[in-house]
Amino acid sequence: MKKNKAKAKALLLICDGLGDRPSIEGKTPLQAANTPYLDEISKEGINGLMDVISPGIVPGSDTAHLAILGYDPYKYYPGRGVFEALGADMELCEGDVAFRANFATVDDKMRIIDRRAGRKGSKDLAEALNGLEIDHTKIMFTNTTEHRCALVLKGENLSNAVSDVDTHEAGSEVKKCVPLKLELEEGEKELKTANIVNEFVRQSYDILNEHPVNKERRRRGELPANIILLRGAGSYEEVPAMKERFGFGAACIAGASLYKGVAKYLGMDVVPVEGVTGRADTNLNNKVEAALHAFEKHDFVFLHVKATDSMGHDGDFEGKVDMISRIDKELVARIMDVGAYIAITADHSTPVSIKRHSGDPVPIVINGEGVRKDGITKFDEISAASGGLGRIRGVDLMPILSDFMGYYKMFGT
Amino acid sequence: MKKNKAKAKALLLICDGLGDRPSIEGKTPLQAANTPYLDEISKEGINGLMDVISPGIVPGSDTAHLAILGYDPYKYYPGRGVFEALGADMELCEGDVAFRANFATVDDKMRIIDRRAGRKGSKDLAEALNGLEIDHTKIMFTNTTEHRCALVLKGENLSNAVSDVDTHEAGSEVKKCVPLKLELEEGEKELKTANIVNEFVRQSYDILNEHPVNKERRRRGELPANIILLRGAGSYEEVPAMKERFGFGAACIAGASLYKGVAKYLGMDVVPVEGVTGRADTNLNNKVEAALHAFEKHDFVFLHVKATDSMGHDGDFEGKVDMISRIDKELVARIMDVGAYIAITADHSTPVSIKRHSGDPVPIVINGEGVRKDGITKFDEISAASGGLGRIRGVDLMPILSDFMGYYKMFGT
Repeated sequence: MKKNKAKAKALLLICDGLGDRPSIEGKTPLQAANTPYLDEISKEGINGLMDVISPGIVPGSDTAHLAILGYDPYKYYPGRGVFEALGADMELCEGDVAFRANFATVDDKMRIIDRRAGRKGSKDLAEALNGLEIDHTKIMFTNTTEHRCALVLKGENLSNAVSDVDTHEAGSEVKKCVPLKLELEEGEKELKTANIVNEFVRQSYDILNEHPVNKERRRRGELPANIILLRGAGSYEEVPAMKERFGFGAACIAGASLYKGVAKYLGMDVVPVEGVTGRADTNLNNKVEAALHAFEKHDFVFLHVKATDSMGHDGDFEGKVDMISRIDKELVARIMDVGAYIAITADHSTPVSIKRHSGDPVPIVINGEGVRKDGITKFDEISAASGGLGRIRGVDLMPILSDFMGYYKMFGT
Repeated sequence: MKKNKAKAKALLLICDGLGDRPSIEGKTPLQAANTPYLDEISKEGINGLMDVISPGIVPGSDTAHLAILGYDPYKYYPGRGVFEALGADMELCEGDVAFRANFATVDDKMRIIDRRAGRKGSKDLAEALNGLEIDHTKIMFTNTTEHRCALVLKGENLSNAVSDVDTHEAGSEVKKCVPLKLELEEGEKELKTANIVNEFVRQSYDILNEHPVNKERRRRGELPANIILLRGAGSYEEVPAMKERFGFGAACIAGASLYKGVAKYLGMDVVPVEGVTGRADTNLNNKVEAALHAFEKHDFVFLHVKATDSMGHDGDFEGKVDMISRIDKELVARIMDVGAYIAITADHSTPVSIKRHSGDPVPIVINGEGVRKDGITKFDEISAASGGLGRIRGVDLMPILSDFMGYYKMFGT
């Protein structure tokens, strides 16, 4: 890296699940929304489409964010549980295995009545499970939002190659956790981990079912949170931090814990913000303020808005259109003059017509000093296809931004 | 390869550092230049953008040329020194380690006064160092242009994983060469090589400081060339020649020694041309004549022009514009009817606004029988983005050209 060269800052805005397919009147929500500020950024910027993983591959939110933040998920993906645990502020050490967890309701035959226990969690119930020890393995457990929890196994010879306990459907019996690999000695760690998981699930029922909190819930006619379902095992390994890889300090502003977890995993500073929820009721104003403030100490700010994705999952075209218009007016309008490179994109498409993530590429625009303006005047999936960026991949974005920012490492001489 | 099919020839023109960003009046130098012939080639050809390595990655000139000539630099890059030595007509054998070298001026405390010794070399001084032997390792040394030299270590158990002696700044002391890897037995070769380098640098001072050439230089008030600084260690390994990989004989016409070195490394014939300098004063007419002549014996001719890059490094917008206009008139105009496929591109962008290589993709046009004309009528970074080639990578170019030329190898049946 050259010395004494001016460095620039950059803001990366990811609107989760923003990409879509044409539906109502042949338009995508992004085409139907009122977005004068996004369009202005497109007009002054360079536009394109981005395959977050590769064409047609449907990204999860976790792998997608790794890729966009410059970490090839085929190399760096540790499993979802790791992000959930980090997002819940749990401490992870090399070799720990982490899970996403749910409070759920089962009957006395272990049949699932509600896999979310009426969407209601309890700090007291979580505390009753936290600190258990099974087979010399310490179990850390915490309740995050609503029924959602995270669990960490701390011990030796553990593996993330074990199956989910969560069946993802009511009516069926709680599944046994089983090893996913059983080749020779490789199976040992997996078997040990699966046994610990199964024993924990059994104990969770014993401890929770007659817990005073659940007695009270039953008395009030609520579903008891009487078992823990686990899924998404992840094995923690340290990865080189963004600062180390790209040379600049990075901040994350996000509501939902997954994105905070990804940010922590990559060594970013997670900025606490009041009133951000990861839902449509999130406080966009506070996010903007936090982003502008974050630039005082950081050269790179990653700003995440979740609600566009939720509208896609709900199949709510009008809701997605409204959310996009709100982001344009309440957020984009205020970051336009931040004096940094601005990149705006999505982690994947979540078309309202199919209510799930899709492999459609997402639109991307980059705006700032020296970008090759391409004559595109609208920020949407169709206009972007004719832009000067052409079609790039998720892992290309950080090298492109780093180059613009002046934090480049030349390959060769 | 199929028999009895007509084969075509191809000319690859690389204008070094040609790509740029919009600056004066929102135009790139290529947009601002007068380029009727380049535009005619665009109009009759297929256009696109090329990421020489991959999006955002800033290429060196050496890795860039490897990629464009069909050799993935992540696999084939031997280190810069190898190209310098080959470009200086030095003989290299498997296992030799080569360096770029500079005559420099130091005071008696080994502090660097001028890392280029007043930009003045000397064949006599080089000869005084050539043939030294240190630790059973023979040292070959030659002066190329001005202060520039190349050095080759010929011996056993040498490594290119050693640091530079050149500090790249005046005022500091000459650096010690140190091993770049020290893991277990891997460190031995590196330590041996670093020791030889340090001993050579020490001896170079002893031999050069009081050499009659330097006494004379001092007498005339010139800086003595009293030490050698080394950098860019490269380890020579033979690679499959272009003829072997693509099936056709290839010629290189270039002024600067790096490009001749790359060409030799890939088994191309380097055509000697009078008056080509790698600078703006290069004789474009002689280059054209040499290229046309080279087609008598070769099916593929690689023609390199350096000065566009130098103008970028100097931040000289007008100079770059003028050089491009000159290339258009004096070179492109005369190769248009060569009766071969013509590909015109750059090895990387060197924007005048930032005076360094950048990761911006470069424009590319391919013209010849059967290409899919795409309606693009201007050869520049913005127009090319809408072209029929889309966005390709450097290593894609040779397969594309080979296919057009009829030298294809089908993958599968």
